[in-house]
Amino acid sequence: MDRQGQPQSLSSSSKTKELDVPLHSIGFEIEELTPSKVSGHVLVTSKVCQPFKVLHGGVSAMIAESLASMGAHLASGLQRVAGVHLSINHIKSAQLGDHVVAEATPVSLGKTVQVWEVRLWKRDSSYDGVKTLTSSARVTLLCNLPVPESLKGAADSIKKYAKL
Amino acid sequence: MDRQGQPQSLSSSSKTKELDVPLHSIGFEIEELTPSKVSGHVLVTSKVCQPFKVLHGGVSAMIAESLASMGAHLASGLQRVAGVHLSINHIKSAQLGDHVVAEATPVSLGKTVQVWEVRLWKRDSSYDGVKTLTSSARVTLLCNLPVPESLKGAADSIKKYAKL
Amino acid sequence: MDRQGQPQSLSSSSKTKELDVPLHSIGFEIEELTPSKVSGHVLVTSKVCQPFKVLHGGVSAMIAESLASMGAHLASGLQRVAGVHLSINHIKSAQLGDHVVAEATPVSLGKTVQVWEVRLWKRDSSYDGVKTLTSSARVTLLCNLPVPESLKGAADSIKKYAKL
Amino acid sequence: MDRQGQPQSLSSSSKTKELDVPLHSIGFEIEELTPSKVSGHVLVTSKVCQPFKVLHGGVSAMIAESLASMGAHLASGLQRVAGVHLSINHIKSAQLGDHVVAEATPVSLGKTVQVWEVRLWKRDSSYDGVKTLTSSARVTLLCNLPVPESLKGAADSIKKYAKL
Repeated sequence: MDRQGQPQSLSSSSKTKELDVPLHSIGFEIEELTPSKVSGHVLVTSKVCQPFKVLHGGVSAMIAESLASMGAHLASGLQRVAGVHLSINHIKSAQLGDHVVAEATPVSLGKTVQVWEVRLWKRDSSYDGVKTLTSSARVTLLCNLPVPESLKGAADSIKKYAKL
Repeated sequence: MDRQGQPQSLSSSSKTKELDVPLHSIGFEIEELTPSKVSGHVLVTSKVCQPFKVLHGGVSAMIAESLASMGAHLASGLQRVAGVHLSINHIKSAQLGDHVVAEATPVSLGKTVQVWEVRLWKRDSSYDGVKTLTSSARVTLLCNLPVPESLKGAADSIKKYAKL
Repeated sequence: MDRQGQPQSLSSSSKTKELDVPLHSIGFEIEELTPSKVSGHVLVTSKVCQPFKVLHGGVSAMIAESLASMGAHLASGLQRVAGVHLSINHIKSAQLGDHVVAEATPVSLGKTVQVWEVRLWKRDSSYDGVKTLTSSARVTLLCNLPVPESLKGAADSIKKYAKL
Repeated sequence: MDRQGQPQSLSSSSKTKELDVPLHSIGFEIEELTPSKVSGHVLVTSKVCQPFKVLHGGVSAMIAESLASMGAHLASGLQRVAGVHLSINHIKSAQLGDHVVAEATPVSLGKTVQVWEVRLWKRDSSYDGVKTLTSSARVTLLCNLPVPESLKGAADSIKKYAKL
């Protein structure tokens, strides 16, 4: 996470926008983007809270699905992938003002099916380095799917930003 | 869904905004809001698509978590509820321009744990009435949670709009 | 369920033994066996209980996986199928002496992926007809898998007993 | 795993019988039994296979639910626990003759809800030390449940064998 200045943050933000519109719209910023790890972070603002003023569980699920899909896309050699199942345990609430970091890593990289684990932690605003697990997810993806001609360009952004 | 004019749509939109900010931000509009059924609809725009131009699976998951949470909140007599697990099967893609309708109904209304099923269907823009299941989710919620003093007002919006 | 005499019960029992050894070993008896519904029943004995004398949740999961697999095998035209994910909510306990009935039905029958729902209910020993949902499961299966030569005979038993 | 002689194996077997009858009936033997880890192993015999002669996915699910329940029971200070959800990904098949080892560890030990991860690996009969992940599960348990008077003895076996 960039804690010094704007430049990296801005570029991280525009990168996310190109890669995943819904993820960008909640303020999430992608950091690492490799076939073995996808990570990023988001600030808990009122835009992503449910009425009890904690991070909306559905937003956590969306982050999990996004990061796992990008990772699987990279790990499959840029084939088309499709999430078939998402399972997420919500463990602790993240409050307004908390920073949430998320990290996706592969559980299994099969030819037909990939399984990714995505964990989310919160760090309170004091930045004391303590992070607490807030959600833990498993995403199951089909990954041997052909890319239709009309979508050949869909992998361009991820190729631009990923470390392959 | 309102297919005649703006007025109901506008009110539906502002209702959703009061009830669930992230749900409103993706363009979702809540229709029914009762302890035994919560439903609504959303148009698939580029705002809610992933790079392959189909509805983002994480957005479906977010809709599921939202509708189930509102239903459980109502069914528990407006106690605080907390989603502990979400499981969602993605079955068919919804394309840009499709209308997606969503409906949450209870599987089990225990005193401590509630389980809700949420299904999403797509209808193509021809409105020929055919709807196809796109996702099917299960949300597990703890529902005997005390409401902290500072959050006593959190149920006001849902009380205003729900049919109890 | 056969409540009159032994003959059907015996045949149901030996049918289950041929179709699924672990399912038979817990005393489960398969009744309907079609591409759109697989059902059966089991008596809750000490053999299937956990230490708190209620039906072992893992036994419910095993029943769910079994029935869904048989259904998917039939619905795929006897291709090889492989469960990739099982998700089960345990809702109410079934006690020693209860009768548990189970029923699997398809949620979605895709060419590549099938999703089945399996529900388990208990009936108390008074046979008053009331049944209570004890578990509700979703099984996700890959279903376009080739059958290796050495396993060509694996579908023989299910062909013998199924109503196709 | 005991690979030298019978005595430990026999005691491991009778320990499992006292702790979990369905788990014992499939030939599983519990090894470690602590509040932070529960492990054991089973040989893949025809008793635990499905018709395609690989380990029955429902048996893997049963093992996962069993180990997580014992771990949660210990980690809760021997309160009654109840599994509310099991989610399992089946990743690779284990064949007849393979040895399967299983290990449960806590993801989160809350006062009300615990989440445990259970992984199963296979080792082929050559004992060359290579193990391959076959299944990966998440079990969600309620853990603040009172123990009814009539079941006060249910924790005796686990107290006898656990390392607390």
